[in-house]
Amino acid sequence: MSVLIVGSTALDSIKTPTRENPRLLGGSASHAAVAASFFSPTQLIGVVGEDFPKKYLDLYRKHKIDLTGLQILPGKTFHWSGEYEINMNNRRTLATELGVFETFNPTLPKAHQSTGFVLLANIAPALQHHVLDQMRKPKFVVADTMDLWLNIALKDLIRLLKRVDGFVLNDSEAVQLTHEDNLFVALKKIHKLGPKYVIIKKGSHGSILSGPKGIFICPAYPLHTVEDPTGAGDSFVGGMMGYLATAKGSIDANIRRAMVYGSVTASFCCEGFGLNATTKTKRAEIEKRVKELEKMTKF
Amino acid sequence: MSVLIVGSTALDSIKTPTRENPRLLGGSASHAAVAASFFSPTQLIGVVGEDFPKKYLDLYRKHKIDLTGLQILPGKTFHWSGEYEINMNNRRTLATELGVFETFNPTLPKAHQSTGFVLLANIAPALQHHVLDQMRKPKFVVADTMDLWLNIALKDLIRLLKRVDGFVLNDSEAVQLTHEDNLFVALKKIHKLGPKYVIIKKGSHGSILSGPKGIFICPAYPLHTVEDPTGAGDSFVGGMMGYLATAKGSIDANIRRAMVYGSVTASFCCEGFGLNATTKTKRAEIEKRVKELEKMTKF
Repeated sequence: MSVLIVGSTALDSIKTPTRENPRLLGGSASHAAVAASFFSPTQLIGVVGEDFPKKYLDLYRKHKIDLTGLQILPGKTFHWSGEYEINMNNRRTLATELGVFETFNPTLPKAHQSTGFVLLANIAPALQHHVLDQMRKPKFVVADTMDLWLNIALKDLIRLLKRVDGFVLNDSEAVQLTHEDNLFVALKKIHKLGPKYVIIKKGSHGSILSGPKGIFICPAYPLHTVEDPTGAGDSFVGGMMGYLATAKGSIDANIRRAMVYGSVTASFCCEGFGLNATTKTKRAEIEKRVKELEKMTKF
Repeated sequence: MSVLIVGSTALDSIKTPTRENPRLLGGSASHAAVAASFFSPTQLIGVVGEDFPKKYLDLYRKHKIDLTGLQILPGKTFHWSGEYEINMNNRRTLATELGVFETFNPTLPKAHQSTGFVLLANIAPALQHHVLDQMRKPKFVVADTMDLWLNIALKDLIRLLKRVDGFVLNDSEAVQLTHEDNLFVALKKIHKLGPKYVIIKKGSHGSILSGPKGIFICPAYPLHTVEDPTGAGDSFVGGMMGYLATAKGSIDANIRRAMVYGSVTASFCCEGFGLNATTKTKRAEIEKRVKELEKMTKF
């Protein structure tokens, strides 16, 4: 089956303690779509401006991402710039220029409306609703989010949680949403808001799934160098949805393995700026790391 | 086989945001010995003052801990008091009264000198050396430490690392010791200091082993309430050594499982103040949580 992914399509200017990279291909949908494309046919819903470099369209195409739902509009592409601190754990936003993203209000191509797997990647909850409104009986819907929406669009987000099968957020967002420091108590509180599957991402500490089959403690792949963690969370959930969409059997039978595939895809993302490392990755390298993680967690 | 454990034997006064508990049984050796006692005969090397409550001696005895090496000297028992912050992750020391611990310089009972498994629990590296000097060809020696010794006794500690098989420390100590933020790079640097097995503890995020069989990502047992994390690290390494001492086969064949048993023992420690929860635990409850962790990590 295919995966439909809506989210931001952006140009990211990223500073780390050692390097500076202007106007890389970025955005939640870009990272998630490239990650998903390793496993399943992927449809991208997004918007870019006329300044969007052709080489980035070529990069999407190299990954066989269906661009029917990508609008190219007069104006500028959404541009984000940020800076990482020395330990790469904290980042701060230097500038956000919305450009054509400000009025983004996608109408889905008819052929996309019956796609089975839907990833509402990080984007305003109102837009996540708007895309979901256009879908006809999707098989599995997952939403991601960020602290910004908890701050300025909490009501929309809470309403969205009643409409999705799965919800993915990071640990600090889980604490912010539930006012609960203990992640396992937070997971229970988030289930009460609607989603059957809740995944809390913990960066280099891995992630935790709470679902019908209980808790799954998902490892992160050990990395010796982290060039740029931007997009790792998007790659994780994109890889997970891509894997799920083609796996045979029930969601419950596949979601743990799907998370491990997502985790490994995210590990490649961290090893280069923007999508530089992800896009050079081969499926065989992903399989190798999944096997390694299997060995590293066995006891 | 038996485990010999040297470390601090103390009275701990612990404040958390919700409760205050004065003069609980504590100290690295107390926590480690009780944890080890679930799995193997355990010998405790330590010192307490005449004020040491009889009920705590009874508690050791209830766990069949060999107290031949526990000195009771005129003076006061080592007393530590500390306070945890609201999220239970940060703690600060309010007072440290060394008492009889100040001149602690144990001579090991002859029968203990040929014990196979030695745990040098958190205590001054000079004392860890002193105990190790008295051992005859132990099969497996593991040392634990704390930030204090990195600050005031680094040379002694570095010298100790050349003499032990395994070294256990937490993530912030690993960064402090190696000046390296990336834990997997830090692990390599610590191996170069001597130990064949290096374990980095990450609290609720579990722990990581680096050894001859590669990396092992050890999960922490999911807890919904943490009453008091004091001694969790000591319980972890104590449980691990206790399990290893009776397990059949090589260290490499058993150390991963031993870590999981240590991790589970530590989870019980966190569920009560001091040793209150650990000492109420039954071996069957430990087995149950180990089985649960097996299920929670399978993919």
